[in-house]
Amino acid sequence: MITGNIVGFEVLGDGQTLQGVNPASQELLEGRFSIATQNEIDLALDKAERAFPIFRKWSPEKRAGFLDLIAKNIIDLGDVLVKRAMEETGLAEARILSERGRTTGQLNMFAHAIRKGQWAEPSIDHAIPDRQPLPKADIRKRLVPLGPVVVFTASNFPLAYSTAGGDAASALAAGCPVIVKAHESHPGTNALVAEAILMAAKEMEAPDGVFSTLYGYGPELGQALVKDPRVKAVGFTGSYGAGRAIMDSAAARPEPIPVYAEMGSLNPVLVTRSALEKRAVSIGEQLGASMTLGAGQFCTKPGLFLVQDHPQFESFIQGLEQKILAATATPMLNARIHSNFLKSISAFSSELSLLNLNKAEGPLVSPAIAMVSGQEFIDHPKWHHEVFGPFAIVIKCNGPEQMITILEMLGGQLTATIWSESGDPDNSSLLEAMEQTAGRLVWNGVPTGVEVCESMMHGGPFPATSHPHFGAVGVSALKRWTRPVAYQNFPDEYLPEILKG
Amino acid sequence: MITGNIVGFEVLGDGQTLQGVNPASQELLEGRFSIATQNEIDLALDKAERAFPIFRKWSPEKRAGFLDLIAKNIIDLGDVLVKRAMEETGLAEARILSERGRTTGQLNMFAHAIRKGQWAEPSIDHAIPDRQPLPKADIRKRLVPLGPVVVFTASNFPLAYSTAGGDAASALAAGCPVIVKAHESHPGTNALVAEAILMAAKEMEAPDGVFSTLYGYGPELGQALVKDPRVKAVGFTGSYGAGRAIMDSAAARPEPIPVYAEMGSLNPVLVTRSALEKRAVSIGEQLGASMTLGAGQFCTKPGLFLVQDHPQFESFIQGLEQKILAATATPMLNARIHSNFLKSISAFSSELSLLNLNKAEGPLVSPAIAMVSGQEFIDHPKWHHEVFGPFAIVIKCNGPEQMITILEMLGGQLTATIWSESGDPDNSSLLEAMEQTAGRLVWNGVPTGVEVCESMMHGGPFPATSHPHFGAVGVSALKRWTRPVAYQNFPDEYLPEILKG
Repeated sequence: MITGNIVGFEVLGDGQTLQGVNPASQELLEGRFSIATQNEIDLALDKAERAFPIFRKWSPEKRAGFLDLIAKNIIDLGDVLVKRAMEETGLAEARILSERGRTTGQLNMFAHAIRKGQWAEPSIDHAIPDRQPLPKADIRKRLVPLGPVVVFTASNFPLAYSTAGGDAASALAAGCPVIVKAHESHPGTNALVAEAILMAAKEMEAPDGVFSTLYGYGPELGQALVKDPRVKAVGFTGSYGAGRAIMDSAAARPEPIPVYAEMGSLNPVLVTRSALEKRAVSIGEQLGASMTLGAGQFCTKPGLFLVQDHPQFESFIQGLEQKILAATATPMLNARIHSNFLKSISAFSSELSLLNLNKAEGPLVSPAIAMVSGQEFIDHPKWHHEVFGPFAIVIKCNGPEQMITILEMLGGQLTATIWSESGDPDNSSLLEAMEQTAGRLVWNGVPTGVEVCESMMHGGPFPATSHPHFGAVGVSALKRWTRPVAYQNFPDEYLPEILKG
Repeated sequence: MITGNIVGFEVLGDGQTLQGVNPASQELLEGRFSIATQNEIDLALDKAERAFPIFRKWSPEKRAGFLDLIAKNIIDLGDVLVKRAMEETGLAEARILSERGRTTGQLNMFAHAIRKGQWAEPSIDHAIPDRQPLPKADIRKRLVPLGPVVVFTASNFPLAYSTAGGDAASALAAGCPVIVKAHESHPGTNALVAEAILMAAKEMEAPDGVFSTLYGYGPELGQALVKDPRVKAVGFTGSYGAGRAIMDSAAARPEPIPVYAEMGSLNPVLVTRSALEKRAVSIGEQLGASMTLGAGQFCTKPGLFLVQDHPQFESFIQGLEQKILAATATPMLNARIHSNFLKSISAFSSELSLLNLNKAEGPLVSPAIAMVSGQEFIDHPKWHHEVFGPFAIVIKCNGPEQMITILEMLGGQLTATIWSESGDPDNSSLLEAMEQTAGRLVWNGVPTGVEVCESMMHGGPFPATSHPHFGAVGVSALKRWTRPVAYQNFPDEYLPEILKG
């Protein structure tokens, strides 16, 4: 395992290091990873800047081949990668295997997309030389890459939103060199995947600097990268605090740059009277399973259940409770996340009675639920924040108007879900309020489980993400690293391949 | 003429006023326009917020009808509008007439686009219930409007980028209520066009607040609007200083919002040895005509001519000089722009000898050219800024490498132009550098004259605009005021019309 910073084709590092920790056993893991020095950061940026004019000219076929090769190399890492990712995150084997599948699937998907070419949105307007009063010029347009991209990796997706995850893969696909800030809680997983990329880059004879990965912490390494004039865009998945700090630094640069940050979400779920009437227990069970999935550490974990006050309310709670009591105690992704979870739960329990107050010991957690009335929730804005982990608030609402009032108070969300029956007269106004809040609306389902497809939107208004127009999942994620260029009256020989003819 | 602030369906104002000035005669024009008070600003925002949930639900056909009706009402204003716009801007009748045509053309174009529906980028992924290992959900996606939009109008496009111009028209088309900050240099033109919108809104029974226009100044009115939480996006066309102030305020809000600012451009033009060899005089003439068009007050005015040192260099200058000497002295758009132009020219003339140093008197200006060597230009970053008006710098370059060095120093541009011959060995590297700098590349032509079509890109990297991915011209300008929403497993009856089936 390479424990140095991978700076293009060089491995550099001495001095201070950081280590992975097994969150389940709290033991230090093998490998001391070098914290990047200012010189190493500078060299990675320099190489990325110099690699860009070469890499952007690669044919789509060649870039696609590079992505496919990275995917193949990741699979070739075999059990070593799976084991290390499990050790560093506390996630189960099945979850890591499925995440690896998603990661290679995304790489292959972007490869397929750039081979097809439509991702570049080619557009051709032919000249009309005899148009009156003025001739029309020949104008053609396509997307071109922005330049070096910095990717901040996600603690909760050590593969699919980390080193070769959605942000890095889409940026490379678009033609942008990538500098990955390794996540301090899974440095070994990062090192293994980075080596898979490094090998692919060498085999493809990519320009030195098309990919680098550096170890360090957000306030130092992260800020140094975001503020550097050679960086042209940033991808981030993580907490609101860290995301906002990056947004603020990027906006304050002499040359502000786009930041695509996904910063969490409460993912409210509405349960109407018509739904409770028919299947209160089942809804409770399904939501209980969704909120405890992966120890509640998905960005789409439902964190607020806005449930209509109704005779079947208690049946809903029974269903929920059943799943919560059945959930096994699990470790969280890292010690900081664990301690933040305990702090949040403890703050809630000092004010509210919690159902199944977290009873797990040591590094493990078990799920918890708080219950409040709609008016209490409205009156306490301090409760309107995400608790990362297996926790949700059940809000007993006195009617659809109160649900809407609460939705309007929350700010932007990745998802909003409704459990209802067709024909319920409350549906229209509730769906409308959901649409004004979230990037994805779910009907009678759970928000966890993000399908990777053309029509997926994984994003939403601030503070769920930094820019409402873009999503981080699916082929359209490519657009974030591009800008359109128009070519006026170009001879065919100088037009990009995709615009010829 | 309505001289109050148009706040939804109310006309409000007393106290302080501002007046239009004829820049040619320096005479005050009829009409005292009320400077918006804090209460009026607040009411416009409140009405826009309340209008949004109603207006966003209008059918595309109804919104299209609204836009077409605005266009018709603008034409119906007849000579009164043309005359007032001429008086307030010093622009010639032919220019105002053509700009009016562009304005109504844009309104009709957006109406056509929303009737067709593809602007909303509808996308449908059908469910695959028996997919292994997990079923695939039915996911569909479309764009929805963001909410109230504030539009800052442009001094140099009193119609096409002002009250019912590209930004306002595209925002209304997308389903966003609009608050227009009237430009203080053409308040009467604003009032007339605003009345055309007001009449259309009343006739269509639009919600009160779908459109407002307020009078005042950037640092007070503009900042109050940008900072208000009810505003969800901003469109701006103007100077770098004003645009950056808006970007900074929007980024510092508790809820940052997208700002689409177009802030000017040097629009570099490269002239190669092969082009000079063939047609040096003609190139000089065409560029001279382009830089003096409309008194050099287009955002696409070519402001830098990077010309290869070559025996035909002097012929190029002759062609240029001929057009410059032939240009009639004209007024500029307003007194501030005029005085800024004189200041810039005077700063240059203290250090460089100017060709045809501005000789016009009183409120009129005539074109001027400065000449420097490539090295001198590189050594003087203080010259690397836009001079708004009929001025350009001719940079005699010692080769293509120097041209590239200069392009790389300039930052983002709306356009970059090259005059060359097919087969010139310098083309590839020059075109590549141009592509990394600008949003639109022009081959053997002039950057002035922006075709309104699908493939047009009117935008570019910072500081030309605030976000490199978006342009302000053509149907795609709509996207700026939208975000995608995905619908998962929705019954047909609750899907938006465009996603049914």
